[in-house]
Amino acid sequence: MRNLTLMTDFYELTMMYGYFLQGKQDEIATFDLFFRPFEESNFCVVAGLQQAIEYIENLHFSDEDIEYLRGTKSFNEDFLDWLKNFRFTGTVRAMEEGSIVFPNEPIMIVTAPIGQAQLLEAALLNIINFQTLIATKARRVNSAAGGAGVLEFGLRRAQGPDAAIYGARAAVIGGCTSTSNVLSAKMFGFEPKGTHAHSWVMSFPTELDAFMAYADTYPDGCLLLVDTYDTLKSGVPNAIKVFDHLKSKGHKPLGIRLDSGDLAYLSKQARKMLDEAGHSDCKIFASSDIDEYVLMSLRDQGAKIDIYGVGTKMITSHTTPSLGGVYKICDLQSEGVHYPKMKISDNPLKITNPGIKTVYRLFERSTDKAIADVICLADEVIDCTKPYTITHPLERWKSMELTDFYAKDLYTEIFRDGKLVYQCPTAMQSQAKTFSNLEGFWEEYKRLLRPHIYKVDLSDKLYELKQKLIGERRRSVVK
Amino acid sequence: MRNLTLMTDFYELTMMYGYFLQGKQDEIATFDLFFRPFEESNFCVVAGLQQAIEYIENLHFSDEDIEYLRGTKSFNEDFLDWLKNFRFTGTVRAMEEGSIVFPNEPIMIVTAPIGQAQLLEAALLNIINFQTLIATKARRVNSAAGGAGVLEFGLRRAQGPDAAIYGARAAVIGGCTSTSNVLSAKMFGFEPKGTHAHSWVMSFPTELDAFMAYADTYPDGCLLLVDTYDTLKSGVPNAIKVFDHLKSKGHKPLGIRLDSGDLAYLSKQARKMLDEAGHSDCKIFASSDIDEYVLMSLRDQGAKIDIYGVGTKMITSHTTPSLGGVYKICDLQSEGVHYPKMKISDNPLKITNPGIKTVYRLFERSTDKAIADVICLADEVIDCTKPYTITHPLERWKSMELTDFYAKDLYTEIFRDGKLVYQCPTAMQSQAKTFSNLEGFWEEYKRLLRPHIYKVDLSDKLYELKQKLIGERRRSVVK
Repeated sequence: MRNLTLMTDFYELTMMYGYFLQGKQDEIATFDLFFRPFEESNFCVVAGLQQAIEYIENLHFSDEDIEYLRGTKSFNEDFLDWLKNFRFTGTVRAMEEGSIVFPNEPIMIVTAPIGQAQLLEAALLNIINFQTLIATKARRVNSAAGGAGVLEFGLRRAQGPDAAIYGARAAVIGGCTSTSNVLSAKMFGFEPKGTHAHSWVMSFPTELDAFMAYADTYPDGCLLLVDTYDTLKSGVPNAIKVFDHLKSKGHKPLGIRLDSGDLAYLSKQARKMLDEAGHSDCKIFASSDIDEYVLMSLRDQGAKIDIYGVGTKMITSHTTPSLGGVYKICDLQSEGVHYPKMKISDNPLKITNPGIKTVYRLFERSTDKAIADVICLADEVIDCTKPYTITHPLERWKSMELTDFYAKDLYTEIFRDGKLVYQCPTAMQSQAKTFSNLEGFWEEYKRLLRPHIYKVDLSDKLYELKQKLIGERRRSVVK
Repeated sequence: MRNLTLMTDFYELTMMYGYFLQGKQDEIATFDLFFRPFEESNFCVVAGLQQAIEYIENLHFSDEDIEYLRGTKSFNEDFLDWLKNFRFTGTVRAMEEGSIVFPNEPIMIVTAPIGQAQLLEAALLNIINFQTLIATKARRVNSAAGGAGVLEFGLRRAQGPDAAIYGARAAVIGGCTSTSNVLSAKMFGFEPKGTHAHSWVMSFPTELDAFMAYADTYPDGCLLLVDTYDTLKSGVPNAIKVFDHLKSKGHKPLGIRLDSGDLAYLSKQARKMLDEAGHSDCKIFASSDIDEYVLMSLRDQGAKIDIYGVGTKMITSHTTPSLGGVYKICDLQSEGVHYPKMKISDNPLKITNPGIKTVYRLFERSTDKAIADVICLADEVIDCTKPYTITHPLERWKSMELTDFYAKDLYTEIFRDGKLVYQCPTAMQSQAKTFSNLEGFWEEYKRLLRPHIYKVDLSDKLYELKQKLIGERRRSVVK
């Protein structure tokens, strides 16, 4: 397993060192990992927990790491000695992969001695930000495909090997059927998908020779790429000849793939040609710079496409290639006393929520659909047998009384006192969780353009704590 | 070393298998890796060669890989046996890292038995596309910074661990001074950079306590983050107190860091406050969603910033997060005869250049500045003692006669018959190459907005070959 312990910002180490010198290294801090409102989507699909777990489990400074740090001349020998036995001993609660998460809700809550909790920051953000970004994009793409299968085809344009490998996994969690990436398929148990490239066709004297040779290789499930020279004049007619031949021998060809040109027009024409030739059972695959907006347009035009291959635009989340997740301290425990912490800002949207928290999702009992989320302090319990009032996090005059509802706590314990207490589901199981979680929301919240605003409120207790700390801070700055 | 052999699209393997069954696996193919005109930049800075070399050197199918492939039920035992001894035996020519490359010029040229050359496609594109993208973005950012240092700060928003690690390296090749990413710094020999986070300040009772504690930790080179509560009312005054204290003890503080708010205004005010307090030697660092456009605006407003930390926008190449590099067959050698290959398209920009090629960059002898690039067939030699006419690749009536010039072949041999014959420079050496290569171009080609068009022409011989093949193809489709 790769040792990513040094994959951290240098300042995490300088701070660890500072805490060590200050004798603060045993103070217990709690950090929330969350994102602020995200322009691309009103909610995200959580992914990345499995890699985050592997990272935490494998945290240690090798002799080589320590030697390297010594060479930076930034740390003393006591500290370097202390790093030798460094292990994660804290507690992590998190939303499982496939969870639906809204802005400001912690995806992950880390409670650990402050140096440990601090060290994790950069790597956890790196892992969770990226995979959650791609699972979220994949949810959008799959939603726009309206039931047609979507294959992840982005390896060659992904931002490096991990982005390809873990991005494909995140895309499956977000709803994709599978991927073309063989290593990702092997690591995470998918069936890798693919046919042949233009170069195959170009390496034979004629397109028909190339198709025949490919059909010899894969007589069953044969899928032919028809756009190397001319889709409708050459590719589809040649594919039909090959399918005729295969069927005469008792084989079952799979279909054709379009990879350029006007996919709406070409798919309709190709569908007609295949049907007229008696190949209504042959499917049409399409790829070529597809994203959720292209998919909506293709469906709108009645394109005859059965399965989509989606690459660049999904694997990079092209329209918004970063999720701005942050990792903020919310509580510090010193000599048994909790001190809730918050970051103040002139911008009310950037003020963090103090204290150790949890989030409840409230569902209407009669429909099993989500009504609102409430961010609470961790010791709060919502009594579902009584009416409960939810209130807007900033505009407190906006409130609503709920009856006939039930509440779900959105967190699962992952590490307890440094020990992994969670069994990671497979990516396909997490995909099933995505689908069942999405079932819990009305369509109005899930539509891709201008979705309805879902309520994420603060409990009264959390709101009051926040106001109290803002007041204290204001007084201390003014004085 | 990670075995990325299976990090390939499944179709590369199905094609390898097809070539194997057809007995074509020993035909020698040549593929060009190049990108088409790229909206973000008129040229790119090549990066990724080192990781590409490691990938190629380490290519082999482990027993576990073969077992996995057997399980897909897509290959016969002869083929799986053949994979056991699979190694790369081909030849690779490439532009070195730090080279300036224009659209349609091959970054890499792979000549190998067709199955091998095919297998490499997806991984080489993944590696070269990403790192070249980031080096190119970093060149733009550094150019906009106009001589102020730029540090790479993008770990937490990079698209996974590799994107962070290799992205930081590419950013350095593109001109960044260093990175905050400790693992990347360790792997590639940079000095990791960083100070402390907001959480450090929040973990102490007051900001001043936090600054004092940090100054105790790093009395020399102390850098304080001043925007946790209120930059000008609290952060800078507290920093000044600490710097006064440090200087009274004979230490030399480094400066302050701004990470939010209006950087132009805050930096000018902070500069004034520091100067008035006698700390003109203290520098101002700034970070916060910076890219080349923000940098141009900050300079335009006379912001007083000495060093920039650039994260999200550079490490993801946010405005255009993918480079559309492709890998196209250009020649197939069968029984000793070369067959030049090209992909035809209705769009003339998408028609590839056939044959095994090279690229010459022509420089004006009196200025050492580049005049034009010429894509030629590999056996062409440009005689610099005679006038040479360059001609537009599509509009052949546009031509220009050159005298008093010299020509540089842009390629270096990397692998010869499977053997690595190239010693990879360090990233810092590649950065020096970037700088010296950039020196070879007039400013008009390098400006960030609407740069002047640099000529990339086709030699007459290559142009004629292309026309001949287009003609043959047209006749074969029409008949």
